[in-house]
Amino acid sequence: MMQTLDRAYFESLDRTDPLAHFRESFELPPAHIYLNGNSLGALPKAARQKARDVVEGQWGNGLIRSWNTHDWIHLPRRIGDKIAGLIGADPGEVIVADSTSVNLFKLAAAAVKQNPGRSKILSEPGNFPTDLYILQGLEHFLDGQVRLVTAPRERLLDAIDEDTAVVVLTHIHYKTGAMFDMAELTAKAHAKGALVIWDLSHSTGAVPLHLNQVQADFAVGCGYKYLNGGPGAPGFLYVAKRHQATLQHPLSGWFGHARPFAMRDDYEPAAGIERTLCGTTSVVGASLLEVGVDLMASASMELIREKSMRMGQLFITLVEERCSKFGFGLASSKDPEVRGSQVSLTHPQGFAIMQALIARNIIGDFRAPEILRFGFTPLYLRYVDLWDCVDALADIMENNLWDQPAYHQLTAVT
Amino acid sequence: MMQTLDRAYFESLDRTDPLAHFRESFELPPAHIYLNGNSLGALPKAARQKARDVVEGQWGNGLIRSWNTHDWIHLPRRIGDKIAGLIGADPGEVIVADSTSVNLFKLAAAAVKQNPGRSKILSEPGNFPTDLYILQGLEHFLDGQVRLVTAPRERLLDAIDEDTAVVVLTHIHYKTGAMFDMAELTAKAHAKGALVIWDLSHSTGAVPLHLNQVQADFAVGCGYKYLNGGPGAPGFLYVAKRHQATLQHPLSGWFGHARPFAMRDDYEPAAGIERTLCGTTSVVGASLLEVGVDLMASASMELIREKSMRMGQLFITLVEERCSKFGFGLASSKDPEVRGSQVSLTHPQGFAIMQALIARNIIGDFRAPEILRFGFTPLYLRYVDLWDCVDALADIMENNLWDQPAYHQLTAVT
Repeated sequence: MMQTLDRAYFESLDRTDPLAHFRESFELPPAHIYLNGNSLGALPKAARQKARDVVEGQWGNGLIRSWNTHDWIHLPRRIGDKIAGLIGADPGEVIVADSTSVNLFKLAAAAVKQNPGRSKILSEPGNFPTDLYILQGLEHFLDGQVRLVTAPRERLLDAIDEDTAVVVLTHIHYKTGAMFDMAELTAKAHAKGALVIWDLSHSTGAVPLHLNQVQADFAVGCGYKYLNGGPGAPGFLYVAKRHQATLQHPLSGWFGHARPFAMRDDYEPAAGIERTLCGTTSVVGASLLEVGVDLMASASMELIREKSMRMGQLFITLVEERCSKFGFGLASSKDPEVRGSQVSLTHPQGFAIMQALIARNIIGDFRAPEILRFGFTPLYLRYVDLWDCVDALADIMENNLWDQPAYHQLTAVT
Repeated sequence: MMQTLDRAYFESLDRTDPLAHFRESFELPPAHIYLNGNSLGALPKAARQKARDVVEGQWGNGLIRSWNTHDWIHLPRRIGDKIAGLIGADPGEVIVADSTSVNLFKLAAAAVKQNPGRSKILSEPGNFPTDLYILQGLEHFLDGQVRLVTAPRERLLDAIDEDTAVVVLTHIHYKTGAMFDMAELTAKAHAKGALVIWDLSHSTGAVPLHLNQVQADFAVGCGYKYLNGGPGAPGFLYVAKRHQATLQHPLSGWFGHARPFAMRDDYEPAAGIERTLCGTTSVVGASLLEVGVDLMASASMELIREKSMRMGQLFITLVEERCSKFGFGLASSKDPEVRGSQVSLTHPQGFAIMQALIARNIIGDFRAPEILRFGFTPLYLRYVDLWDCVDALADIMENNLWDQPAYHQLTAVT
C-alpha cells in the first residue's frame, strides 16, 4: 500500500529524524519556514555568545594583544583545517580568506600561470555570475594571453582540449541544483592536461565531497550558505598539496608572506596554503564562521545528505500532487543523486508567488527570470515544514493570492 | 617662566580638553594606557549593541530579508559616503570593501590600465610591506608590462618621469609617522602625467585630509586603525569622480555589476564607485565599522589634529627630560606638521622594553628592528596617560626592568 502523504506522516518523519536535535542549535524566528539556507544560512545559537566574546572580550578588552592571546593570527588556517574535514581535503589544504569572488580570482590567475602555453579558460554559460565576471576580469586584464570560453554542460567534456589551461565550474548549480560528476570531469580535464577549479558554494555542508579522492586541483567556497557563517562571512579556498609549492597568485599581500611581521620589502610566499592569504583577516566574520563550521562538523554528512535527498523527493512529490495544475515546471532533476540540496520550480509568475509565500514567513527565493528556489538545510529544517510550505503554495495558487500589486514590486535582492 | 611638566599639569590639560568627553564613548579595559590605536582602534561602546543587533536581529531574525529590510545592499556606499566626509572627498567617491591590500590591487591594476604606454610603478623602499608586496604581485602577474621601481623619499620627486604610470605611497609612514605633502607630490606626479594612489591607512581619522582639494586620483584606507572599526574591519577605497567612468579593475565580481541580481553572464560595471566592489559585503564587519566611522564623524578633525600634535610634542619633551640618558633615539620628526599621530622611538632593546611596558598594561607596539611605536588617538587618550607612560618608561629604564627573559620572547604579532 502506498503511504498517504499527509501532515501526520511528515510529523512522524521528524520524530524519527536522527538530525532533528540539531534544530535546537539554531535561533530561528518563530513561525517561519526557512528554505533559503542555500543563500544565507541561519544563526547558530552559539554565534550570539561568540559575537559578544569576540567584540567585547577579544577586541574591547584584549585589544591588539588578542592577535596572540586569542590566536587571531591562526584563525584562517584553524577554520580551514576544519572545513577540510567537510570536503575530503587534508589539514593544510584549506584556508579561510576574503570573499569567494576574490579567492576565485587568486586561483584562476594562479592556475593560468601554473599551466603556461595554454590560452583557454573554460566554463559554462549560466554559471554563477560572479564566477564568469571574475574570469572576464582576468581575461581582460591579461590582455589576450587567455580567453574565457563557455560551453553548455552537454558539450563541456568535449570542449576540454590541449589548449585548456583551467576549467572553472560550480559543482552544484545555483539555479537548478544540478550537480556535476566531480570525479569524471576532473579526470577528463587531467587527461587533457587541464586544471580544474571547483566552486563549492552550493556544495559545502550540503553534500559529501571528496576532493582529494578525485584528485581535485583547486576549489573555492562560501562561508555564509550551508556553513551558517553569517552574512558576508569570509570564503575559503582549497589548493591540493601537490600544487602548493609552485602556486603563485597576484594578490600577494602581507598575510601570505612567509614572515609577515619581519616587515621586509620583498615578498616571499609562505610555504603552505597560507600563501593564498592577502590582507588582514576579517576577525569578527571569521570567528562567527567558525561556529557554523564547528556545528556542521559535528553532524554526519552522510545523514545530512540522506535527509536532504529525501526532503527533495518528498517536496517534488507534494508539488506534483497538490500543484500540478497551476503551471509549475521543475528546473531540478528528479534524480536526487545528481541534485544538490535544493529544488527549483519554474513559473511565469514566480516572483509574485515567492513574495506571497514570504508574506506568510515561508522564505525561499526567486532567481530571474522565473525560478523559485527552495533550499533544504537538514540541520534545521523539519519534514513538516515541507508539508506546510506546499500546503501554503497550493492555497496561494488555488485562490490567486499571489496576484496583488505588492507582490510584483521588485526589490533590491530577491 | 617655563611651565613645569608634572602630572598635575597633564591632568589640567585633560580638564580643559574639548575632546575629553569622547573617551566615554569607548569601552577600554580598566587601568590600561592604550597607545596602539594606530594598529587596532579601541571598541566604541555602541559597537557592542550594534554587534547584537546585526547578529541576533538582522541575521537571526531577518535572515535573507535583511538585504532589503536592513539595507545591507547599500552598506558599502553608505559608510563610504561617511568616510568621504573625513577625507575631503564627495559622496559617491568612497566605498567600503574587502581589505586594504585587495583594494590596492584593484586600484593599482586599474591605474596601470588607465595610463597605458607607461611601464613604471613607483614607490619607496620601506613602504608598508603589503603595499610593496601587492605591487610586486601585480608586476609579476603582468609579466614585464610594468615594473615596480622604488626610490628613497628624498629622491622620489625626481624619480617621477614620463614613463611613470602610477605612484603608490603611504601618506603617513607606519614606522616613523613621517607625512608626505600630498598636494606637492600629487601635483608633481600630474605634471609628468602620472597617477597617484595614496594609502591612507595611518591618516584617516588621524589628520585632516583634502583629497579633492589636492586633486587626488585614487586612495585606499584601513577600517580598523583610527576609524575604530574592529579587528580585520573592511577597508575602503577612493576614486575621484573624473576617473570613475573609465576605471577598469580585474576583480570584477558580482557586487560591482550594474545589476548584480539580473544574473547575466556578461559583466557590466556599475556606473559609479560601486564598480570597485567585488564579492558579497562583509556585513557584520562593515556594520561595526559604521559605528566607528559615525563616532569619528561626530568629532572635529581639526580638534583631533590639534590634540594629536600637542600630545606628540609633549611626549617627545617628556622622553627627552626623563629618558635621555637611556639611549633612545627619535625616529619621528620633531616637527608636528610633518608627523602623523604617533611618535616612534628607537632603542636596541626596543622589543624587551615594549614588553615591559605592556606588562604594565601600557600598550604600544614594536616594529623590527628597533622601533617602539606610540600612537595617539585623541578621542580616547588622555594627556595624563602620556605622563604615566613616560613615567613607567623611565622607571623601567632606570631599574633595568626590561631585562627579563620573558620580555625577550618573540611572539607572533608584536
